Amino acid sequence: MNTAGGSASPGLLDPRSGSVDNGGVDTETFDLTTGTELVTDVTGLVREYCRGRGDGLCHVFVPHATAGLALIETGSGTEPDLGQAIDRLLPREDIYRHRHGSTGHGRDHVLPAFISPSLTLPVVDGMLALGTWQSVVVVDSNVDNHHRQLRLSFVAG
Amino acid sequence: MNTAGGSASPGLLDPRSGSVDNGGVDTETFDLTTGTELVTDVTGLVREYCRGRGDGLCHVFVPHATAGLALIETGSGTEPDLGQAIDRLLPREDIYRHRHGSTGHGRDHVLPAFISPSLTLPVVDGMLALGTWQSVVVVDSNVDNHHRQLRLSFVAG
Amino acid sequence: MNTAGGSASPGLLDPRSGSVDNGGVDTETFDLTTGTELVTDVTGLVREYCRGRGDGLCHVFVPHATAGLALIETGSGTEPDLGQAIDRLLPREDIYRHRHGSTGHGRDHVLPAFISPSLTLPVVDGMLALGTWQSVVVVDSNVDNHHRQLRLSFVAG
Repeated sequence: MNTAGGSASPGLLDPRSGSVDNGGVDTETFDLTTGTELVTDVTGLVREYCRGRGDGLCHVFVPHATAGLALIETGSGTEPDLGQAIDRLLPREDIYRHRHGSTGHGRDHVLPAFISPSLTLPVVDGMLALGTWQSVVVVDSNVDNHHRQLRLSFVAG
Repeated sequence: MNTAGGSASPGLLDPRSGSVDNGGVDTETFDLTTGTELVTDVTGLVREYCRGRGDGLCHVFVPHATAGLALIETGSGTEPDLGQAIDRLLPREDIYRHRHGSTGHGRDHVLPAFISPSLTLPVVDGMLALGTWQSVVVVDSNVDNHHRQLRLSFVAG
Repeated sequence: MNTAGGSASPGLLDPRSGSVDNGGVDTETFDLTTGTELVTDVTGLVREYCRGRGDGLCHVFVPHATAGLALIETGSGTEPDLGQAIDRLLPREDIYRHRHGSTGHGRDHVLPAFISPSLTLPVVDGMLALGTWQSVVVVDSNVDNHHRQLRLSFVAG
């Protein structure tokens, strides 16, 4: 995960410089390496993006048809629990009309209807106002695609 | 699908004129004919609404208790795959307390808890910043109601 | 449910005074008593928060890893229908890696991936622009935690 792919909107201050001058919307993209993991924690990236921006809303978005975003606790077993739940609810079997890619890939295309690729988060004084156990994660059940994009946008107060 | 039902907020410029002058929120409603289809693609309507608005966020909303919104690939089989997934997860059977309408209509009322009627999308330079395979769709499993409303709102930069 | 825990951002007008002066984002937290109920209706609280604010978007957020938000019809059976659907899809059984708390508590941690703790709502002339049958509810399947927080934020026009 890195910010090398960041493409800040021209005319806005650099996101890391600590302020936005127009009370409007700033937006930037980031490249992610999700590898073969179902769950990729991007909380640190989102926190860094919001730092110094004051009060507002941070919009998190993955521009992909086989990935979603969630707020879950990480590191205590919920990642594999989520994986098993997805496999149970949307089995990776040959039951789908959508037939491109690996067997069962059709279910990857149904996933975003239930785990949306769009997530809005509150920001207070430049800090993500998450609960203690909430982490922002990309949920990507598509094992064929190891590289993803994340778009972060900020509505300032 | 048409814009005949559009009710622009008074005092704002016409949404199609290409700019919003206050850096704030503009909102408008549209009438949809969903017929008996589970999935109605509204990407074109949302794209047109955002055109010329610069950077911002577009909020998409269906004011109905038995419909949701999703970002999925359309035209490659995912629409029927989603229909089968919904029928498997929320069967149209006589197992619900909510008993108005057709048999199994109770499941239509559970659907929006899993497929939310609220969706926020990034807009860059007046263009929806969706992934190549993402389309905005209304998911409406309620076969008793063929006419729906869609509310689009825009937060400008 | 009460507003005693409200912590308005310093420097902004009191949310109930009817206007926001900066076209930006105002944010406030509220304490909720959810008790042992799966579904807690917070529509009245959100309506009151938005009153007098003009056009905009209201962001609703629960900072908890075992709760979500939904728009459903209340009072006609959908609350128990949703409870049964959750129990069917994410059974409260000893099948989870996450093992803190009561038996089956692991499923409470999977729930927010499917029922997101983040929800954005349109507001027109200070009124929540919901459909007739839509109510804003906290969905909290965690019977161990009876007290919750709700964060409301408003993006003004």
